[in-house]
Amino acid sequence: MQLQLQAIIDALGGELHGDGRLTIEGLASLEAASPRQLSFLSNPRYQQQLGSTQAACVIVAPQFRDAAASRGACIVAADPYLYFAKVTQLWRKAQVVVPGPAIHPSAVIDPDAVIDPTARIGPLCVVERGARIGAHTVLKSRVSVGEHCVIGDRCILHPGVVIGADGFGFAPNAGAWEKIEQLAAVTIGNDVEIGANTCIDRGALQDTVIEDGVKLDNLIQIGHNVRIGKHTAMAGCAAVAGSATIGAHCTIGGRAGILGHLTIVDNVHISATSLVTRSILKPGHYTGVFPLDDNATWEKNAASLKQLYKMRERLKALEKAHDGAPVNKSEQ
Amino acid sequence: MQLQLQAIIDALGGELHGDGRLTIEGLASLEAASPRQLSFLSNPRYQQQLGSTQAACVIVAPQFRDAAASRGACIVAADPYLYFAKVTQLWRKAQVVVPGPAIHPSAVIDPDAVIDPTARIGPLCVVERGARIGAHTVLKSRVSVGEHCVIGDRCILHPGVVIGADGFGFAPNAGAWEKIEQLAAVTIGNDVEIGANTCIDRGALQDTVIEDGVKLDNLIQIGHNVRIGKHTAMAGCAAVAGSATIGAHCTIGGRAGILGHLTIVDNVHISATSLVTRSILKPGHYTGVFPLDDNATWEKNAASLKQLYKMRERLKALEKAHDGAPVNKSEQ
Amino acid sequence: MQLQLQAIIDALGGELHGDGRLTIEGLASLEAASPRQLSFLSNPRYQQQLGSTQAACVIVAPQFRDAAASRGACIVAADPYLYFAKVTQLWRKAQVVVPGPAIHPSAVIDPDAVIDPTARIGPLCVVERGARIGAHTVLKSRVSVGEHCVIGDRCILHPGVVIGADGFGFAPNAGAWEKIEQLAAVTIGNDVEIGANTCIDRGALQDTVIEDGVKLDNLIQIGHNVRIGKHTAMAGCAAVAGSATIGAHCTIGGRAGILGHLTIVDNVHISATSLVTRSILKPGHYTGVFPLDDNATWEKNAASLKQLYKMRERLKALEKAHDGAPVNKSEQ
Repeated sequence: MQLQLQAIIDALGGELHGDGRLTIEGLASLEAASPRQLSFLSNPRYQQQLGSTQAACVIVAPQFRDAAASRGACIVAADPYLYFAKVTQLWRKAQVVVPGPAIHPSAVIDPDAVIDPTARIGPLCVVERGARIGAHTVLKSRVSVGEHCVIGDRCILHPGVVIGADGFGFAPNAGAWEKIEQLAAVTIGNDVEIGANTCIDRGALQDTVIEDGVKLDNLIQIGHNVRIGKHTAMAGCAAVAGSATIGAHCTIGGRAGILGHLTIVDNVHISATSLVTRSILKPGHYTGVFPLDDNATWEKNAASLKQLYKMRERLKALEKAHDGAPVNKSEQ
Repeated sequence: MQLQLQAIIDALGGELHGDGRLTIEGLASLEAASPRQLSFLSNPRYQQQLGSTQAACVIVAPQFRDAAASRGACIVAADPYLYFAKVTQLWRKAQVVVPGPAIHPSAVIDPDAVIDPTARIGPLCVVERGARIGAHTVLKSRVSVGEHCVIGDRCILHPGVVIGADGFGFAPNAGAWEKIEQLAAVTIGNDVEIGANTCIDRGALQDTVIEDGVKLDNLIQIGHNVRIGKHTAMAGCAAVAGSATIGAHCTIGGRAGILGHLTIVDNVHISATSLVTRSILKPGHYTGVFPLDDNATWEKNAASLKQLYKMRERLKALEKAHDGAPVNKSEQ
Repeated sequence: MQLQLQAIIDALGGELHGDGRLTIEGLASLEAASPRQLSFLSNPRYQQQLGSTQAACVIVAPQFRDAAASRGACIVAADPYLYFAKVTQLWRKAQVVVPGPAIHPSAVIDPDAVIDPTARIGPLCVVERGARIGAHTVLKSRVSVGEHCVIGDRCILHPGVVIGADGFGFAPNAGAWEKIEQLAAVTIGNDVEIGANTCIDRGALQDTVIEDGVKLDNLIQIGHNVRIGKHTAMAGCAAVAGSATIGAHCTIGGRAGILGHLTIVDNVHISATSLVTRSILKPGHYTGVFPLDDNATWEKNAASLKQLYKMRERLKALEKAHDGAPVNKSEQ
């Protein structure tokens, strides 16, 4: 497929330098682009690639207008990465062939589910009774939406997603576990995207809630009664235990964990793999990861770590012995 | 839906204070309950909420009988949380509408599988030849049960569960990997619940075994030849490597990992995210998690951690230099 | 089922000591083997089990020929574990009953997908338009292969695998997220095995690539644009973030994580649970895991860890104060 530069400008705006009739046959990074492809420079760190790229045209910020225009066609946009995102959408739209049926005949839809006529339900999905699927929402293949769960408009659910399995709730009973039936459901807002094989459990007494614009990657686990605020993004394999409340505009790194019954305010950023064990009431960037090392060094440090509080005692004793008073007054 | 308090007492016992004809329209926490809802107090930490809750009736332990009765209807039970669990079950039972067919027509069942007539197989499940599904067991939608795997009675398998995929076994062969065929199966006891998208691999030579009453949350990985003892519960995203043996009545926190070929005795509790790297032969509570901190502080501590064994050497040298003898005799 | 020892020798070679007409009814470990079963000794650590095993026949290395032959039948092979792997394959082959149809009628195959006539597509799989499935490749039940994704020859994809869901790509846009359409696909080489519920995302601009002979366990997440080199093996629940490049012949432990845009060279081994946060340019074994301890000890050490860089400062001050010069000249 092909697009002329002028067609891109007509659709998305931006300031074109060069011939609008130039035909683009694909998108690529500066490094990989061929002379028929469109590229972009968003991170100034890569500006020297402007000189070497073979791209037919480069999307750049105003500060790189001259450098880009001197080497060939360019599109100047305030935010080149955002502009690039919109070009990918344009490209996708131009690619799409005749779509299949709105509800694939292999999907199993309960007669008491409500599916917006503009929604698309892919092959081998299951939508149970009382569930609602909003306008323009797409369920790719093999998605399960449980009883009474609600999905908003313009959502995308990737293959294998499970919405509304039972939350993990049991009361101890003489050494065994008594099931606590999960009587509530899942409510998902608009413009939410949910990655492959991700699971969002139904609430015990109140719905699990995913607010508008949330983006969840693959293989994520969201426990019952959790609430995730608007436009929070969570990378692959993250896990949120039951009844945690996460604010808006947070980013949760891949494989990060959040214990149950915690509160995380807006604009909190958790590094990959870290475990959040207490509420976070101040925006910021938080981390808890054992640093990687070659195995032999790690073994020595890990062994010492098991003595760390004893080392602290010994240090204190030494300070005291040294001159009758701590050398360093802080942290005693 | 509605239930009268007397109907609850008739079904579950307990000591009612107040009018048995009072109609309950739902269950909720003390904080969230409306005047038509039933709530419970199980953790004494929340006892002051007894005064402020709007709940129609509260389930309490004997010690809170007077406090609860003075504010309205209450049910006194020895274990309020367990009583509450049973009320959720009663509620679920009262809710259930006419059930669908025992085996959904979209499920793919091998003619050589044996399915108890009281079991229920949901939409788009796959049950392979030689598999057995016990009495009153429920496979929700999109569950796969592989060849010769056996599921006991009264189990619940949530959507996306995979029982009996091949264990991960390969022999190195001149830089490549030679597959070790996984010739055994999976045996699951009675009253086991398995969360969405959880995987339990078939054994190489002996079955992978999940004993009675085990509860597994979502997205858990159980490797081949593993054995999990009775009534052990495992939270979301936990992973158990091949040939590990886990005792009865253990709790394994979310995202915890257990290496292969280990033994963990009964009544062991592993904190979320921790990795078990050696056998645990003593009941107790075990943890191994890097504590979360703001990122800047974490960076400084993580950098120091990479010098920890050198710090230990320096500390020892300093102690020796100080007075010719260690200041602290322990741990030299 | 049964196999005579001579049939095994005829198929796989090896040096037989004992009666070739001896009938084997199964395979088992030395410890568990009954007198009708075949076993193997690959790890010399278990050589004393040679004396006590009841196995009908044991596969051993040349160094154990005499010890094994003195107790009964044995097969001598250069690499007993590899020989055993091949016996499991022989066993599987002998077991297989009449296979079902090449493409199960419940699978949903786009008319524009290309499926080799020798491939087998199991129940309830989805293969989208433009996808290609190579010769002798097997998709077990409930596998999704997205548009234009290519799977090589002799691959095995276990239930619930998702190939070609969208990579996780968004550009920030005034507090919300703008989707970056994922325009490339996934290319998988020959002899690749992919475990249950594992996800491999499609590339944004270039394909995600899994090279020949790679083995992935269950519940693994492979982000967009990742490349994994030949014969690398990855254990369950590992996760690789976008645009990472992993070399050939690596082993990645269970639950290990690899951040995005990194390079890992050939022959790197990452311990279970470790997080790789920087490129690894030297072959070797790398680890970063907080050691497990009883919870009380862990709490004390974790608390001290939060003071570690201050402890380092105090140690330095003490060294300086001691005699005007560091006691230990290294690492100042």
